[in-house]
Amino acid sequence: MMHVFRPRDLDFLLYDVLSTEALCESERFAQHDREVFDSILETARKLAEDKFETHACDQDSNPPRLEHGEIKVAKAVKAATDAFIENGFSAGPFPEKWGGLALPSTIVNAYTFYFNAANIATSTYVGLTIAAANMLMNHGDDAVKEMYLPHLVAGVAFGTMCLSEPHAGSSLANLKTTATPRADGTYQITGNKMWITGADHDLSDNIYHFVLARLPDAAVGTKGISLFLVPKFEVNEDGSLGERNDVKVVGLNHKMGYRGSVNGVVAFGETGACRGRLVGIPHAGLSHMFHMMNEARVGTGMAAVSCAYAGYRHSLIYAQERPQGFKLGQRDQSQPEVMIIEHADVRRMLIQQKAYVEGSLHLVLYCAQLMDRHEIALDAKDEKAGELDFLLALLTPIAKAWVSEHCIDANRAAMQVLGGCGYTKDYPVERLYRDNRLNAIVEGTTGIQALDLLGRKVTMGQGAALRLLMAEIQKTLAAAKEIDGLGQWAEALDAKCQLVAQATMSAMGAAMNQEIEKFLCNATPYLNALGHVVIGWMWLEQAVVAKTGLAARPDDSFLLGKVQTCQYFYEWELPRVEQWTRVLTPIETTCLDMQTDWF
Amino acid sequence: MMHVFRPRDLDFLLYDVLSTEALCESERFAQHDREVFDSILETARKLAEDKFETHACDQDSNPPRLEHGEIKVAKAVKAATDAFIENGFSAGPFPEKWGGLALPSTIVNAYTFYFNAANIATSTYVGLTIAAANMLMNHGDDAVKEMYLPHLVAGVAFGTMCLSEPHAGSSLANLKTTATPRADGTYQITGNKMWITGADHDLSDNIYHFVLARLPDAAVGTKGISLFLVPKFEVNEDGSLGERNDVKVVGLNHKMGYRGSVNGVVAFGETGACRGRLVGIPHAGLSHMFHMMNEARVGTGMAAVSCAYAGYRHSLIYAQERPQGFKLGQRDQSQPEVMIIEHADVRRMLIQQKAYVEGSLHLVLYCAQLMDRHEIALDAKDEKAGELDFLLALLTPIAKAWVSEHCIDANRAAMQVLGGCGYTKDYPVERLYRDNRLNAIVEGTTGIQALDLLGRKVTMGQGAALRLLMAEIQKTLAAAKEIDGLGQWAEALDAKCQLVAQATMSAMGAAMNQEIEKFLCNATPYLNALGHVVIGWMWLEQAVVAKTGLAARPDDSFLLGKVQTCQYFYEWELPRVEQWTRVLTPIETTCLDMQTDWF
Repeated sequence: MMHVFRPRDLDFLLYDVLSTEALCESERFAQHDREVFDSILETARKLAEDKFETHACDQDSNPPRLEHGEIKVAKAVKAATDAFIENGFSAGPFPEKWGGLALPSTIVNAYTFYFNAANIATSTYVGLTIAAANMLMNHGDDAVKEMYLPHLVAGVAFGTMCLSEPHAGSSLANLKTTATPRADGTYQITGNKMWITGADHDLSDNIYHFVLARLPDAAVGTKGISLFLVPKFEVNEDGSLGERNDVKVVGLNHKMGYRGSVNGVVAFGETGACRGRLVGIPHAGLSHMFHMMNEARVGTGMAAVSCAYAGYRHSLIYAQERPQGFKLGQRDQSQPEVMIIEHADVRRMLIQQKAYVEGSLHLVLYCAQLMDRHEIALDAKDEKAGELDFLLALLTPIAKAWVSEHCIDANRAAMQVLGGCGYTKDYPVERLYRDNRLNAIVEGTTGIQALDLLGRKVTMGQGAALRLLMAEIQKTLAAAKEIDGLGQWAEALDAKCQLVAQATMSAMGAAMNQEIEKFLCNATPYLNALGHVVIGWMWLEQAVVAKTGLAARPDDSFLLGKVQTCQYFYEWELPRVEQWTRVLTPIETTCLDMQTDWF
Repeated sequence: MMHVFRPRDLDFLLYDVLSTEALCESERFAQHDREVFDSILETARKLAEDKFETHACDQDSNPPRLEHGEIKVAKAVKAATDAFIENGFSAGPFPEKWGGLALPSTIVNAYTFYFNAANIATSTYVGLTIAAANMLMNHGDDAVKEMYLPHLVAGVAFGTMCLSEPHAGSSLANLKTTATPRADGTYQITGNKMWITGADHDLSDNIYHFVLARLPDAAVGTKGISLFLVPKFEVNEDGSLGERNDVKVVGLNHKMGYRGSVNGVVAFGETGACRGRLVGIPHAGLSHMFHMMNEARVGTGMAAVSCAYAGYRHSLIYAQERPQGFKLGQRDQSQPEVMIIEHADVRRMLIQQKAYVEGSLHLVLYCAQLMDRHEIALDAKDEKAGELDFLLALLTPIAKAWVSEHCIDANRAAMQVLGGCGYTKDYPVERLYRDNRLNAIVEGTTGIQALDLLGRKVTMGQGAALRLLMAEIQKTLAAAKEIDGLGQWAEALDAKCQLVAQATMSAMGAAMNQEIEKFLCNATPYLNALGHVVIGWMWLEQAVVAKTGLAARPDDSFLLGKVQTCQYFYEWELPRVEQWTRVLTPIETTCLDMQTDWF
């Protein structure tokens, strides 16, 4: 694994492109500097290599089992999460007040990238805990926070998110779990939750489940849902562990990937004795959860690109070391065979991966940076905060869905580079391919992200977010037009922005006609089109930086590769926007019109 | 499983579109009629449901193991292959002279479809045996055939294909296994073979390995390879089993899919006592093998579409039965939820699968029919035989590579329809997704098929095969133009044929300039482009038949679905040809020019 990570891949994006160190000019992050960030990332990389990657294969073959109602996880997993916590990574994003390190989201995402890429299954336990702590910090009242939040930050307790139920995966309107007030101010929780990652394990002393449930007076549908914290063990006043709560894993999901990660059905209140505490405002549970959900969606994009990066790097190394076949036109078969990276089609599969992976990584880190800049703007009561929030809201479904879908494509290409070897468990690419398939499903499927993008994000503020995005893209176009060789790509991207703008107007026309189904029926190709424009923008940004660097160091192969990959994206990928916008201008209704009994 | 197969899917293609019963007008197939075919297909479907599908999940979770040098397969697998043989399916394609049923390839492929779709892993054992028998029949001399062929036809012995070696997967030029003549006329075989499916098992009394090896006087490279039959047990003069031969499985591959199918490394002559018999002409082994290989490639396409069909049907049934969410614009959340098939994006994922699956199935059956028509033409000394052979040769890499790649897309969409459920082992779609990933790798990867298509098939006879294909397409265009509503699609397909023709000329220009690498560097997008044209042609054929049928039965929902799916292909898929041909006219060299150290 040592040679799989190439630190410059992250450094280039964080510093050369995104100027992450500029965040330290704000009061919020003033205690940090690049040296601190570098040291954290270096520690994360080594820990990922030494403690996370090392058990990924074994854990995949020997997933945790449910025995006598309890789940024990392999020792290597605990050694990894212990080391993660000891090195302060669970405390990364939280203020010092709660025992945190007050790191920018950008850096938290960057170190998460290393752990994910090394072992996505083990990373879920700690990643979810950070997300849960974040939600509690943002929505819990002080008493609940003081009692529980430091445990999550310190990794003494781990967290879970309990949204779905067996009958309702994506649609929360019908969830049935109930919360009944008790005399002591807590709530009796009753119901079953499905798809619960980290549902049980022995990695931490306690587990805090964040559960959506209905209060007795709740409205039907999504407006009658509240959020509760349900600990596995009660917590005594002094912070020590109390009684076992009535929370139990009653079944595990046997999954195609993420096999090292526990995921199952949790029964709350089977014996009528499950106590939980209200978090936030009654009946506002879904909005509290969705606040976290947006970060979780960017996090899913990060998970996807991490798996794709690992696959890309493994396949690249394989292609550089595996002799097979001859150069085309070479007829003397007594000569040595060439490394397969010499074959044009292998290079195509590698450059496609590079384009998807490094473009996606850029987008996800950019989203993380928007979160940081939003926080800084809020601190400063800067009116730009609203704009940053809008931009992030618009990009989130793309960072989730475009990235997860295209990173599956990347893992598919990685396996193809290895051929038959890639299909066996002797190499990690087949596991990465299985793992990454999940990311287009969890935290809202691609179809749901597309509805969110076109139905909610594009329409909000009368199209304000999309206008903001286009204005940002124009800045890059202006910079690119000043640089030799980038002008034609700037023009190409500009033209594709126009196509997306036309597609948007076409969809809005249907919306204004109250043709709501027609408005949204092709939301997925819309997401693909806008996604390709956004990733094209990322690549143009990278090319601007690379070209500038090449002026000083014309032989820098890393930078030459960046420019060449940008060229790949513009020649091979960006034209696809035409195809996706075609079914939107005008709206093509073949799929919508297909009748159920015609299948 | 009972309701997964819909017999009309096959019937429509076999009879309404391909007029398979017309094959019986030839002397070769005169003993059969549609009633015979129907009875065979009905038996196959039931057997597939009752004996093959029933153990697919269990076999996937409990793959065969190598213990003390031997492999025992689950009893359910033997029950299935026994029933396959008892019902005559192993004898299907062979002349009566060898104990066969002399069925057309079209029908053999059609029944294979059912077995594959039910359980691709178990189907490999019997499928390979048929392919091996076919090769022996075509290339063995009479003495060898008389001794071994009836065993394969009767399923007493199973067959394997031993091409690859651990150091050489796709490139056979460097294979090292040797064959040394012995005094008794047999050969001493020494070497290791890799990726051997059906390498060992207890499904049959004997196993006949077909092994590529070098004779002592062999030239280097691909021209010095001969073909040998190496039995697991020697066969005595009277046909009874003799001594155990020096052939041994020394390792198994642990694969992502096809887990029920044994695949491993076979050592020949570890103790210097491995005897084999020459099959065919010395040093012509590769061409003998490649004769079989072309059928194997069409067979791989059939495997791919079978897995995709099963996934499509499972996801369709799920979508019809799973309530979730509301119709867009429905705001009253107290109403019952709708079935997910009501959501436009779910319909999109289903119609995409239908388009890929039923288009692919049509193409593969058409290729099988070309084999039959070729045989009939040879019997009749009809000069058209050469044309049929050319057309089949051209379509084979498309039936293998386009079909396998797009059927992976179909299985991916099937999983997406099921969401989280699709990612678990509770439903077969995740297994089908894992299984089907192999088909783009085996029997020559997609990249190799693309080189074969553009470098060999398109160029042969100065482009004769491509001209034949275009002439066939023109016949369909002419028919479509006569039918109300199909004219615009005919024009669209014609335009895309022109794009492919231009791309072909562009590539040929590079070839004539001796720019061999440039000529072939974008062979994969070329294959995609021509593949989409061919599948567009298939769909237009189906639409012509469906429209004609609708004139008599305007409410036939099956036929309405065919027309609607054709429309999907023309509105959503066919435009992609523009993107793929763009990188060929002129030839775009970003991938070729990418330097190894720029990655």
